[in-house]
Amino acid sequence: MTLPRIGITLGDPGGIGPEIVLKSLAGRFKLPGAHYILFGTRRFLEREEKALGMALPCRVRSGGQGAARGSLEIREIPIRAGPGKRGSSNAASGLASFRYFEAAVAEARRGELDAVVTAPISKAAWSLAGVRWKGHTEYLGRFYRGAIMAFWSESLKVALVSHHVSLRAALRKIKREALRDFFLSLDRSLAGAGQVRFEFAVSGLNPHAGEQGLLGREEIDEVGPAVDEARRLGVRVSGPFPPDVVFRNAVGRENLFVIALYHDQGLIPFKLLAFETGVNVSLGLPFVRTSPDHGTAFDIAGKNRADPRSMVEAIRLAAALISQRASRT
Amino acid sequence: MTLPRIGITLGDPGGIGPEIVLKSLAGRFKLPGAHYILFGTRRFLEREEKALGMALPCRVRSGGQGAARGSLEIREIPIRAGPGKRGSSNAASGLASFRYFEAAVAEARRGELDAVVTAPISKAAWSLAGVRWKGHTEYLGRFYRGAIMAFWSESLKVALVSHHVSLRAALRKIKREALRDFFLSLDRSLAGAGQVRFEFAVSGLNPHAGEQGLLGREEIDEVGPAVDEARRLGVRVSGPFPPDVVFRNAVGRENLFVIALYHDQGLIPFKLLAFETGVNVSLGLPFVRTSPDHGTAFDIAGKNRADPRSMVEAIRLAAALISQRASRT
Repeated sequence: MTLPRIGITLGDPGGIGPEIVLKSLAGRFKLPGAHYILFGTRRFLEREEKALGMALPCRVRSGGQGAARGSLEIREIPIRAGPGKRGSSNAASGLASFRYFEAAVAEARRGELDAVVTAPISKAAWSLAGVRWKGHTEYLGRFYRGAIMAFWSESLKVALVSHHVSLRAALRKIKREALRDFFLSLDRSLAGAGQVRFEFAVSGLNPHAGEQGLLGREEIDEVGPAVDEARRLGVRVSGPFPPDVVFRNAVGRENLFVIALYHDQGLIPFKLLAFETGVNVSLGLPFVRTSPDHGTAFDIAGKNRADPRSMVEAIRLAAALISQRASRT
Repeated sequence: MTLPRIGITLGDPGGIGPEIVLKSLAGRFKLPGAHYILFGTRRFLEREEKALGMALPCRVRSGGQGAARGSLEIREIPIRAGPGKRGSSNAASGLASFRYFEAAVAEARRGELDAVVTAPISKAAWSLAGVRWKGHTEYLGRFYRGAIMAFWSESLKVALVSHHVSLRAALRKIKREALRDFFLSLDRSLAGAGQVRFEFAVSGLNPHAGEQGLLGREEIDEVGPAVDEARRLGVRVSGPFPPDVVFRNAVGRENLFVIALYHDQGLIPFKLLAFETGVNVSLGLPFVRTSPDHGTAFDIAGKNRADPRSMVEAIRLAAALISQRASRT
């Protein structure tokens, strides 16, 4: 079997991205056998190597056999400005992190990468740099309209109906047709994932899922009918359930995704349960995209305090999802 | 020291209220020394005693010494209809549970009870019965405008800015002045609670607390200024913090309350961490009111499957808060 090709982006150079990338690739972790292509800028990597006393290897430690099972190359992305200052959002770092991602996505779209694993970027920095997209998922949405943001851990799996919009705007997106299409798309994008057939539990929007209309009507008018329609079309989806119960009940059920109707509804419980090892996954794309489930952590950047485990898990999940795809074809 | 007087309401007779009350008072749990007054209807209690093979004692098991340290009397509240059917909301049960609570609150308001501990009611049943208030906290709000709904456990403490309203309506309540007053009132109501001086961390409303205005402006326009004003007035409050981070960071910090801006923001993490033993507390009242942190659980009512631990913890916390009050005066 040919080794998969996994792109890794360096993230915002002012955040902990370079540190966790270096720790993941040069540290004590065993990674899946793959050709790794690191999208970044050498001088940021060198600064980090010096700070951490680590050197990027040509081959990453892999669990497999043979010298060829863990190669690493660096895709140099030229950035005009010098190493930006660490620890806060700035336009230069924002632009750099966007360029890394843009280049990786371009290769993935050409079919030259099987997966892209992204280190954290700062949305504020992208905005300062004049980038038109709010984040990774929104940029992917430019090419793949139905890109779905999901979060993956052993204890809990969550998919978000909306993500980087204000809560007010998220409420306006709770519409029957859009929800039904979301359920169908999520089901389709996971349909062939290994042996597993996923089920979906939809959270309500209002306290107690509206308590029969007393505390809001979205469950009756929009969410419930969308669930019913998707069920009729064969999706194993149920709900809406009370938001403060559905996540709790899903813990440990590995074939169950909870569908959250807005960003924090899903991410409050997910981060509580899977802070160090949670992985962000984009579904509904022709390639795999994963990312550690934390931000740039500007407050600890450059201090050798960043925990690379979520990044390592993101790389491992990317490889696992690739092999599931491969086994389907 | 005189024993405190603690009222206990039976809750919705069609739910698990009678079961957890009976298990708490007649089971293996040691309760604080107190005069317990049970507000309910004998025939519901007798049905439950028969079903569970338990009998209500005249004295509850208490950790203290002396025969007088755990008396129990039943305050019979006459209800016209027969024992309603278990397992669903109906008007008769709704009215019964309202009458129990109304009677207990009346005694507490006259100074004859130091605390009221309430078993779960069904908001839908109250509505069917024509009760004008959505729930316990709203009824208390009739007498005490600033009644605050809070949730208490060892690992996490949460206070809710709004509770039983639709998410849409909760958004409309995010206003600077109201928030500042809430922070002040919460601080005051906890000011004398034992040796502890509480701190408060306020959650943001939008993803990433608005990410500097990119994902919503409530943090900049309303929440932030309210925090600043309350700080100037001496409250140890900070924020707004990203919702998917603030709860995680508060876990285990026993002197910290997280202030949630809407019901599920606070209750999703609270129930995840403290499902069996969490306690609901009303603050800002002249007496103590606590309640188990779960609903009527109609689906398991009458099946001897209800877990009384949250009810037991509610009774214990009520007694602890009374003794703190007593030590202040």
